[in-house]
Amino acid sequence: MERTLISETPKKVGEKVRLDGWVNSVRDHGKISFIDLRDRTGVVQCVGQDISRVSPESVVKIFGAVAERPEKLVNPNLETGKIEIQIEKLEIISKASELPFDIGTEDLNLELPTLLDYRSLTLRHPKQRAIFKVQQVIVDAFRRALQEKDFMEFQAPSIISSVPEGGAEVFKVGYFDHQAYLSQSPQLYKSLLVGIFERVFSVNHIFRAEPSVTTRHLTEATSLDAEFGFIDSWEDIQEMEEYVIRFIFSEVEKKCAKELAMFGATLPKLSDKIPQIKLREAQEIIFKRTGRDTRDEKDLAPEDEREICKWALEEKGSDLIFISHFLTKKKPFYVYPDPADPTYAYSVDLLGRGVEWSSGGQRLNDYEEILKHVEEWGLKEKDIELYLQSFRYGVPPLGGFALGVERMTMHILGLKNIREASLFPRDMERIDTRLSLKEEKSSK
Amino acid sequence: MERTLISETPKKVGEKVRLDGWVNSVRDHGKISFIDLRDRTGVVQCVGQDISRVSPESVVKIFGAVAERPEKLVNPNLETGKIEIQIEKLEIISKASELPFDIGTEDLNLELPTLLDYRSLTLRHPKQRAIFKVQQVIVDAFRRALQEKDFMEFQAPSIISSVPEGGAEVFKVGYFDHQAYLSQSPQLYKSLLVGIFERVFSVNHIFRAEPSVTTRHLTEATSLDAEFGFIDSWEDIQEMEEYVIRFIFSEVEKKCAKELAMFGATLPKLSDKIPQIKLREAQEIIFKRTGRDTRDEKDLAPEDEREICKWALEEKGSDLIFISHFLTKKKPFYVYPDPADPTYAYSVDLLGRGVEWSSGGQRLNDYEEILKHVEEWGLKEKDIELYLQSFRYGVPPLGGFALGVERMTMHILGLKNIREASLFPRDMERIDTRLSLKEEKSSK
Repeated sequence: MERTLISETPKKVGEKVRLDGWVNSVRDHGKISFIDLRDRTGVVQCVGQDISRVSPESVVKIFGAVAERPEKLVNPNLETGKIEIQIEKLEIISKASELPFDIGTEDLNLELPTLLDYRSLTLRHPKQRAIFKVQQVIVDAFRRALQEKDFMEFQAPSIISSVPEGGAEVFKVGYFDHQAYLSQSPQLYKSLLVGIFERVFSVNHIFRAEPSVTTRHLTEATSLDAEFGFIDSWEDIQEMEEYVIRFIFSEVEKKCAKELAMFGATLPKLSDKIPQIKLREAQEIIFKRTGRDTRDEKDLAPEDEREICKWALEEKGSDLIFISHFLTKKKPFYVYPDPADPTYAYSVDLLGRGVEWSSGGQRLNDYEEILKHVEEWGLKEKDIELYLQSFRYGVPPLGGFALGVERMTMHILGLKNIREASLFPRDMERIDTRLSLKEEKSSK
Repeated sequence: MERTLISETPKKVGEKVRLDGWVNSVRDHGKISFIDLRDRTGVVQCVGQDISRVSPESVVKIFGAVAERPEKLVNPNLETGKIEIQIEKLEIISKASELPFDIGTEDLNLELPTLLDYRSLTLRHPKQRAIFKVQQVIVDAFRRALQEKDFMEFQAPSIISSVPEGGAEVFKVGYFDHQAYLSQSPQLYKSLLVGIFERVFSVNHIFRAEPSVTTRHLTEATSLDAEFGFIDSWEDIQEMEEYVIRFIFSEVEKKCAKELAMFGATLPKLSDKIPQIKLREAQEIIFKRTGRDTRDEKDLAPEDEREICKWALEEKGSDLIFISHFLTKKKPFYVYPDPADPTYAYSVDLLGRGVEWSSGGQRLNDYEEILKHVEEWGLKEKDIELYLQSFRYGVPPLGGFALGVERMTMHILGLKNIREASLFPRDMERIDTRLSLKEEKSSK
């Protein structure tokens, strides 16, 4: 008999079915037992007599008949709540050991270390799975938004030949006779590729040897990178990013209503257009609102980010805000200074719900200008030849942005720690030492 | 005036347009000059008088009128071949330096080191761009094929805590006080995730410290990984893989006809069903065809792979063939031995056009069986606790496969070296030392 997916059962009242899944929970009522069975499509109640005891999380095959529930037993919270399966036979396929804690509760209520130490088990909880459903929808929506705008996907290298100035914050890789590093950003690659493909994007892992354990940093994270040429002004970058953000939100809204509800989460509020102000304007607003004078500071501190987001929500009705015109000298060599005042650059960050979601901006495309910056920034041409090569042979005005997947997931769902938004989070202290076998060449 | 994309020009005969693009080539005929202009959507001929000399690859804006070409000047090889642009104004946006070699030829005819040393320039050649168009279609088709079958995408960690037995072939990463490695495969992660999501896939980078320079190995490659549970037999894995392969081929055929034609390439020939034989059967066939006796060998050598592919094409009309039942003891601990003869395993490789395209198979899902293998393979339970944790609490019968993106691209297009199928190939000797600036934290 062919397997029936649980989501299909309500259409099969009166029919015999075979269901495959996990035992979500068991309730014994004397002779009669109830099993909530779970598969990738949902949960359904199964009822039977004289069922040999089956432990929660065991994998079973249930053969039975789909029956309508009596009116007063209908469960409106369950998509299959109008029916139940009358068990005729139950086969245990993979028996689960006794669980270290109950995972059948509405919330897991575990401390973060326990949640992560038992990751292979705790991820089975509906709220945990929901996080990664939302994450996958974000990643997929990012790709489709840009594919619709003719962007070409590319694979960015992770192993790079960086010669870090300080040496901190990058991971070293032993690479034969070379010293190599793990990439912190595909920035240089994506920019030079604009000279070839005009519009590119990449979903890639980035690595930061963050030497502290915070609630908002991972050492390995997923970055959504976009870069494109033939912009008419730096504001085109903002517009493209706003389009992508709206596309993502609309997909999450459409596909993850249930998941958002589990977390009592609502998508960030958007006004007609995401407001945009300059760094110095933001500091002026913060001064007026709080009396805290940061007007000479070179960047926004975390409390400034929170304050300016509060302002955006109160005054502009938006949970998101673009901040532009950061200090040129605080940015890398490829930054595009505003000709009206080259102290500030055409750089633009997106803040959301009090924290940075992305950074981006226009990049220099004129070869001579780039060379000037390379010298001013104290860099060597030979160390960047592959980048210069692209711009030596004609590249249009360009720019782009990068969004952090885990951070977006975290702030859409209102999670407290970014580790909750990573399946297997890596930080200074955590790297799955309990999964450390050699993965052999023949092992795929 | 708004930009018009080159692909739109044939619909705008008689209209004034602005085109943005690269100067693909310039032909001077006395007072009149012809410029082939290129953008992401195509190439169009522009014609003008007294155009100041513009170097090939420069980025320009051309203002002009779209005109039909006289019948005898129509170029049937160009999508815009029935029209041309009569230039009224030409602005140089980014002037290209003199090219080190002509890239306007039909083939580049460069040695591989030159092709790669000038990667930022050589990638502009239509045949080079075509390779990555095909590659992107492969990756995208893989994802969509599995999304249609309810697979959930996940992010596989690159930094792992592997303790390699030999130490060769993995890259070490300096990870704070830990020793860490770059992942060779997301195998353990994808299998344990079947216990959670039932069906998963991942597009991830894998790393092999291959200590030799060959035409078919990269140190950083892109892997398409799929794994799923509730299989009824190991043959379900083959069926799913065949479905994915057919989906990919059909997408490449639909979207890359032009690109295939550039390489004189045809998609691998498929019969009604991809043939499947066991390792020992393959060796028997090779013996009968060539007299070469490998019937006691534990694996297929490269010449065996070529021979059995020849046989599949001649006898079964298929460029692809599944080889199953490799030796259990040559496989990792999670391999599923065939109960009929446990010397051989439910493992299955896909060969195509003479080489391995993928490997996969059924994995043990019974906790006690896994523990037995862990001991027999000489492994320690504590080193694999995160994996065991999943199987301790119920996992259905499962299996999966992994496909190499660059290798598929190479063998679909008939490229001679796998480096041609990687934008920025990494090998023992090549790692973009000419792109080695620090990518600063603020640099996105």
